[in-house]
Amino acid sequence: MKRILLSHGAGGQEMFALIEQVFQRSYGPSGVSRDDSAIIELAGGNLALTTDAYVVSPIFFPGGDIGRLAVAGTVNDLLTAGARPAVLAAAFILEEGFPLESLQAITDSMHQTAAEAEVNIVTGDTKVAPRRAADAVFITTTGLGAVLRPGLSGAAAKPGDKIIVTGSLGDHGIAVMLARENLLGSDNIRSDVAPLTEIVLRLLEAEVEVHALRDPTRGGIAATLNEIARQSQVAIEIEESRVPVRPEVAAACEVLGFDPFAVANEGKMVVIVAASDANRALGIVRDCRYGREAQLIGEVLPAPAGRVHCRTPYGAARLLEMPTGELLPRIC
Amino acid sequence: MKRILLSHGAGGQEMFALIEQVFQRSYGPSGVSRDDSAIIELAGGNLALTTDAYVVSPIFFPGGDIGRLAVAGTVNDLLTAGARPAVLAAAFILEEGFPLESLQAITDSMHQTAAEAEVNIVTGDTKVAPRRAADAVFITTTGLGAVLRPGLSGAAAKPGDKIIVTGSLGDHGIAVMLARENLLGSDNIRSDVAPLTEIVLRLLEAEVEVHALRDPTRGGIAATLNEIARQSQVAIEIEESRVPVRPEVAAACEVLGFDPFAVANEGKMVVIVAASDANRALGIVRDCRYGREAQLIGEVLPAPAGRVHCRTPYGAARLLEMPTGELLPRIC
Repeated sequence: MKRILLSHGAGGQEMFALIEQVFQRSYGPSGVSRDDSAIIELAGGNLALTTDAYVVSPIFFPGGDIGRLAVAGTVNDLLTAGARPAVLAAAFILEEGFPLESLQAITDSMHQTAAEAEVNIVTGDTKVAPRRAADAVFITTTGLGAVLRPGLSGAAAKPGDKIIVTGSLGDHGIAVMLARENLLGSDNIRSDVAPLTEIVLRLLEAEVEVHALRDPTRGGIAATLNEIARQSQVAIEIEESRVPVRPEVAAACEVLGFDPFAVANEGKMVVIVAASDANRALGIVRDCRYGREAQLIGEVLPAPAGRVHCRTPYGAARLLEMPTGELLPRIC
Repeated sequence: MKRILLSHGAGGQEMFALIEQVFQRSYGPSGVSRDDSAIIELAGGNLALTTDAYVVSPIFFPGGDIGRLAVAGTVNDLLTAGARPAVLAAAFILEEGFPLESLQAITDSMHQTAAEAEVNIVTGDTKVAPRRAADAVFITTTGLGAVLRPGLSGAAAKPGDKIIVTGSLGDHGIAVMLARENLLGSDNIRSDVAPLTEIVLRLLEAEVEVHALRDPTRGGIAATLNEIARQSQVAIEIEESRVPVRPEVAAACEVLGFDPFAVANEGKMVVIVAASDANRALGIVRDCRYGREAQLIGEVLPAPAGRVHCRTPYGAARLLEMPTGELLPRIC
């Protein structure tokens, strides 16, 4: 089996061969730029720029892999800005000895996910770190898109707005954690990792009055809703019974001591929408491939600013706090 | 001394505190975006996008540090596309236990270098890997700029063009290598790491007929000139005696068995310019802060396509090949 050598990152003959054989082959016929920068044409107007480093372990997990994650995660961050994702840049840090066939599988997965999300990977970089100076592979993906709807922000939620989540919560974090710890032999919990282009573009094209979009990754919806409540200086109240969590994910969380609301998702969006458009928005999301299980889970209140409450089935309200501590490391 | 914990990358309270205390403080009053994407305004036209992962070891070295490198390297890649660098995104992978004060020093250095290069760091990401899953800190910097001069490319060199290097070669690679191996106690060889904004923008503003720009990083000018010769399907000939190499760098290369032409630079540019504009270009470059030691080192010939020759002081010509093998790992 061929493996990554230090020379693959050294800027000479071997690096160029790797670029030709792996990256150019995977990313498609037009290929990535052979110059140090890619040149792209985007219509005038505002642009959204986002970057994320992916260090997930294991790199292959039920429902996805680090390549699909690195594309979907960055695409979803562009979508939260009301932008149409256009191009991606992908920088790899490879550990010496990493199998070339795993790299090929990852770049193929990136290409497939990029095609699904209708973006092109236009430039990249490859560095190799000696054994034990990095773990297998890290990918940093940066995305650029044209803003279709200005003003979407975690700071733009307004009292009265409704809160939609586009599907069940906690799948990604629990799937990765179980795979890492070899806790289950079966694939009964799969990551939800997916690009949410269809959902967001259809909401924007239908001129739904969306105020904020955020993908609840690290820290789950607990972190996402607390961020929005702080940025917008509003209170948020959700109804626990309305929040979709798969029974097997709920059971795993129960056993392992995790709060599913604080577990990462990679194929879900929190949509904060004007009350008058909430039902229309829910219908559009449910009509999309990755939105069939969408639910309206709560609303935005004027006060107390920065607080998130979760109403239990018994009518009590508990504070849903910003998560602290280690949570689940290397989940994305 | 405070150190990075796994919780600093977990997406909760500790991560937000780190963003406030380190990144927001270093990057300046306007700060980085608090949403998942930064929104930027750029005039219409073509854009240049580039990304690089920086894994240099050691992270502090004579003449610079990983932060200055991560900004200058990406800025220089944008400049090679004939673009005015506008904004940067910076994604960090931190090893658990990394000292917070080192992170602060690095982000301060990034901010200073960004100010010097007249770019803003507008968005970022922080991940933490457990001890020994990463080495200290890796930074991936992505840059976006507006193309001022379309058509610059490694594929655009033409027979008759002259070749300028903007200063002495090999300083960065040798400085980092000596620092890593503790081979010299003194700082007598310093990295040249610098953003070359002034040199490139002045060349473009003066409407000098530049055909290609490339910063000779990994693989040195040996890799850069071979890439250009292949992309443009031309031959390149340089005169060894005209290529500036500091005596102490030449001596270190001699002792250590490196070819200074294959050693990385981080503050130099190879400028391929129409013969009629060569002297004017040289004058402009030498008038710039980082271009005082610029030299005209050779020219582009029609054939044999893809070959680079180096003429020695004795009149003989040796083939300057694309470097192979490990060269100097973790130099950038």
